[in-house]
Amino acid sequence: MADFPLSKEIILDKAEEVLRRFGPAKANLLDVARALNVSHAAIYKYYSSKTALRDAVTERWLDRITEPMNAIISLNLPPEVKLFQLVEHLIKSKQQSSLADPEMFATYATLASEAREVLELHLTHIVDLLTLTIEHGITAGTFNGIEPRETAQAILIATSRFHHPSHAQDWLNPEIHYSFNVVWNLLMKGLTQRS
Amino acid sequence: MADFPLSKEIILDKAEEVLRRFGPAKANLLDVARALNVSHAAIYKYYSSKTALRDAVTERWLDRITEPMNAIISLNLPPEVKLFQLVEHLIKSKQQSSLADPEMFATYATLASEAREVLELHLTHIVDLLTLTIEHGITAGTFNGIEPRETAQAILIATSRFHHPSHAQDWLNPEIHYSFNVVWNLLMKGLTQRS
Repeated sequence: MADFPLSKEIILDKAEEVLRRFGPAKANLLDVARALNVSHAAIYKYYSSKTALRDAVTERWLDRITEPMNAIISLNLPPEVKLFQLVEHLIKSKQQSSLADPEMFATYATLASEAREVLELHLTHIVDLLTLTIEHGITAGTFNGIEPRETAQAILIATSRFHHPSHAQDWLNPEIHYSFNVVWNLLMKGLTQRS
Repeated sequence: MADFPLSKEIILDKAEEVLRRFGPAKANLLDVARALNVSHAAIYKYYSSKTALRDAVTERWLDRITEPMNAIISLNLPPEVKLFQLVEHLIKSKQQSSLADPEMFATYATLASEAREVLELHLTHIVDLLTLTIEHGITAGTFNGIEPRETAQAILIATSRFHHPSHAQDWLNPEIHYSFNVVWNLLMKGLTQRS
């Protein structure tokens, strides 16, 4: 048995290692217990099912993406710059993660697609950040004639091509950055139009 | 041996049947020849490889999607209505095809992702139709301050969520139609902004 105290952090680190080695289809509680040299029951105290453990791995991955976005929100920047930086960060973190380790990125994407509730919370959090920024932009007179939350959702959906894991293959094409700029400029024209 | 004259049409019909039965990984020239009760050489006169046959199946499928779009282009409609109808047709034809037969839709999508050149031609054709409509809109004074072709590409990319086969699962959610309207309204605001 292991001679160190277990923690959620240690279990999640090992779970990522096991997922990396065996892929999303195979990795389970028993594999993680075995890799940590602890009993199934020891893991069970922290995560009561394979689903609970996978949800926690997914949540940690998604939180790593949104954490810098929480920091961007509190910067003193014009709203249109802040909005760009939020979406740019989302896109860059996904694209860099996929380029650095395509297999692990695909594994995370599979986990996320199965962890519906965790994914919904993550997306709602991003829409919250965009909504807040759009609201500031409306107050500042930069954005006009739009409903903030609806527009935040539309921006997230209209940029799917650049951050949704289904399109990871497209990110290998260097023209993707140019495409994003064209889509972004068109969306920003829509946000700033005077009615 | 078969007692009817072969044609490209007959071969493609049978190839679709074989793909439906065996899936995209397995169906090949020999399977199609067997299903038609003709020799491998008889098929070979029309399609010289498995890839050539698959490209032809893909092309026919994609042409069925764009054919009504060619008709929309020649209607006497305001440019913003025409632009909406073009993209709406693209979206509806994909979504209906996926809902009606999800497995066959997935098979076509796999073929299309492998037939890069055929797919590129299809996408270029759609961008051509959108570009033409945007040009008419600029001439008519409906659209402003945009570069037609670049904007056509941006519209196609920004609506990926609604027509790209990777998102077929999302189309089961009835809210997808509402999402499209919100994205579309934002894009149209961008197209009609006076500079």
